[in-house]
Amino acid sequence: MTSQIKVVTFGLGPVGCAIACEVGRRKGCRIVGAIDNDPEKVGRDLGEVAGFGSKLGLSVRADSEAALREADADLVVLATTSSLEKIRPQLLEILATGANVVTTCEELSYPWSAQPDLSAELDEAARRAGSSILSTGVNPGFMMDYLPSMVSGLCRDVETIRVERYMDAGIRREVFQQKVGAGLSVEGFAKAAESGVVGHVGLRESIHMIAHSVGWTLSNLEIELEPVIAREAIDATSTHIEKGAVSGVDQIARGFVEGRERIVLKFVAAVGEEAPRDRVLIEGTPRIDLKIDGGVHGDLATCNVVVNSIPKVVRAAPGLRTMLDVSAAAA
Amino acid sequence: MTSQIKVVTFGLGPVGCAIACEVGRRKGCRIVGAIDNDPEKVGRDLGEVAGFGSKLGLSVRADSEAALREADADLVVLATTSSLEKIRPQLLEILATGANVVTTCEELSYPWSAQPDLSAELDEAARRAGSSILSTGVNPGFMMDYLPSMVSGLCRDVETIRVERYMDAGIRREVFQQKVGAGLSVEGFAKAAESGVVGHVGLRESIHMIAHSVGWTLSNLEIELEPVIAREAIDATSTHIEKGAVSGVDQIARGFVEGRERIVLKFVAAVGEEAPRDRVLIEGTPRIDLKIDGGVHGDLATCNVVVNSIPKVVRAAPGLRTMLDVSAAAA
Repeated sequence: MTSQIKVVTFGLGPVGCAIACEVGRRKGCRIVGAIDNDPEKVGRDLGEVAGFGSKLGLSVRADSEAALREADADLVVLATTSSLEKIRPQLLEILATGANVVTTCEELSYPWSAQPDLSAELDEAARRAGSSILSTGVNPGFMMDYLPSMVSGLCRDVETIRVERYMDAGIRREVFQQKVGAGLSVEGFAKAAESGVVGHVGLRESIHMIAHSVGWTLSNLEIELEPVIAREAIDATSTHIEKGAVSGVDQIARGFVEGRERIVLKFVAAVGEEAPRDRVLIEGTPRIDLKIDGGVHGDLATCNVVVNSIPKVVRAAPGLRTMLDVSAAAA
Repeated sequence: MTSQIKVVTFGLGPVGCAIACEVGRRKGCRIVGAIDNDPEKVGRDLGEVAGFGSKLGLSVRADSEAALREADADLVVLATTSSLEKIRPQLLEILATGANVVTTCEELSYPWSAQPDLSAELDEAARRAGSSILSTGVNPGFMMDYLPSMVSGLCRDVETIRVERYMDAGIRREVFQQKVGAGLSVEGFAKAAESGVVGHVGLRESIHMIAHSVGWTLSNLEIELEPVIAREAIDATSTHIEKGAVSGVDQIARGFVEGRERIVLKFVAAVGEEAPRDRVLIEGTPRIDLKIDGGVHGDLATCNVVVNSIPKVVRAAPGLRTMLDVSAAAA
C-alpha cells in the first residue's frame, strides 16, 4: 500500500529508547536518524543505545539541526522534556524540515487552555510547515483525559467526572520509581516536591481536555501532591524502601466550574500498591462506571500509544493536534 | 460563538422521537422540520408526536423532498431503517439539499467491508454535496466497535479481542423488547429469527470496524442467534413472559483471520438479565480487561451519542464518515 514512514528518534532516555525499539519492529516504519545530547550516547550505534539486540548502522548524533536536515524524515518522535517552553525550540527546528512530530511532552497534550500563546504559535508554525504535531502517551494522552472524554459522549447532563489511576510503581522502570519519590524520606520528598522533581506532570492538561470535551469553562483548578508512606519495608526491583519512608505519590487534581467541583483526577503511583486499577466514573444520564482492574501498564502502553499514532499523525491535517483530533486505534 | 444548527428529524419511531426531544433541549440546535410517513403522525405537531410536552408549531410531513428543500437544514437526523439499501434513496434525497446526516442505520455504521460499492457511491455523493454522513448510536456506534477500537490503541501484538454486552431488556422501550423476541414461544422465535424480525443488527459491521482498527484482514465471519429461555415466569414493564418462553436473544459473532478466531462479540439482551454489563477484553501487550458493571443503558445512550455527534458531523470533512473519524466526546 503506502511506503514506509521515515522516522527520526529525538531523545533517547528510557521512554525514547523503548519507543525506538518498537518503531524498529514496525513494518510500516523505518528509522532514519537518532538524536540525543548525552555524551555517553553520542557517536554510538542506536541499536546498542536503545537495546535492539543488534546494531542498526545509525549513529546517535548531538547536532540535531544537521541530523534532522540530512535524515529528511516524515516524522520525528520527540521524547526530551515535559515542559512546553523547553520543547518549543526543538519543535521549531523539526518543523523547519517539514517533518511531522509525535511527542511525549506532557504539557503539550492539551496545551490550549494553560498556555494559549505558545499553543497558537506552534499551531501556526505547524500549519505553515504543512506538518502536524501530536503529544500523546498513556497519561497524559489516554487514561485520564482521552478515555473519559470519549466515554462522556454516551451521556447527557454530565454532573461530575472522576478519574482514578492507581499504579504499582514496583513493576515500572527505575526512572518512574524515582519520579514518584520511592525510597525518599518524608522530608526529602517535601523538598523534591517543592522543586518539581517528583510528581506526575499532566493533570492540569488532562483536566483541561476533559472540560473542553464536555463543554465546561473552568473557574479554577487545584492540584495537591502528597507522599504515600510505606507501612512496612519494601524491596522493589530497583529500590529499597524503609518502613515510614516514601513509597510513591498521591496526587489529586480538581477542576471547578463556577466554584463547584466537577472534575476530579486521582493519581496514585506507589511501590507495593496492592490494587492497581483505572476507573472513569461519570455522574450523568446515564451514569457510567468504567473500570480496568489491574490497570494499564504505563511504560508499555505509552510506547504503544505513541507508535500506534505515527501513521495517523502523518495523515492528519496540519497544525497542533490533540488526541481528540485523531483515531487512537492500534492501526 | 456559532449560530444554532438547523436540524430536521426524519423518522419518528421511538428512537427518532427520543432524539427529537433531546435535540429540542440543546441550545446549539434548532429543529426546523419533521418527516415521517406514518399516517397516524403526518399533519400533527412534532411536539405532540415526539412527546415534548408542548407544541412546537412544526407539523410532521410525509412529502420528504419538499419538506427537506423548504427546511434548508444544516443536518438531518435520519432514523428510519437498519438497512443500507433501503436508506440509500433517503440519503441521496437529503444530500441533494446539501445537508449533513447523522443516522442510526446500523448497516451504515461501518459499511466499507460488507457493502463496498454502496459505501463508495454514498461517499462520492456526500463529497460532491460537500456534506458528511455518520451512522452512530450506542451499538453499533460505540460499545462493541468504537470503544474496543480506541482501547486497542493501548496495545501492541493484539492476539484476540472479545467484547461482551449483557442487557436487561426489561428496562428498555417496548420496541426493543419485541426486537429481542421477549414473550415469544421457542417456535415463534425460530420463525422470527429466520425472517430477520428478531435479533440485533450491526454485529457484522462492528467486527469489520474492529478488524480495520487493528489492521486485520478477515478470512470469514460467523453470526449465531439463539433464544434466552425464561426459567420462571417474568412480568416485565410491557411484556408477560411464561416459564419456558423466550426472554431475549443471545447472539455471538466471530471474526476469523486466516481461519483463526480473533474477534468475538457476545450480545445478550433478555428481560430479567441479572447482571447487565459491558466488557472489552484485549489479549495483547499489555492485556486490557475493561468492564462497565451495570452496563450502559441503550435507549438513553443511543440518543446521546447521536445528538452529541451533531456539531462534529457539521464540522467534519465531506464524505461517508465512521466513528473512527470524529471525536465521540459529549461536546
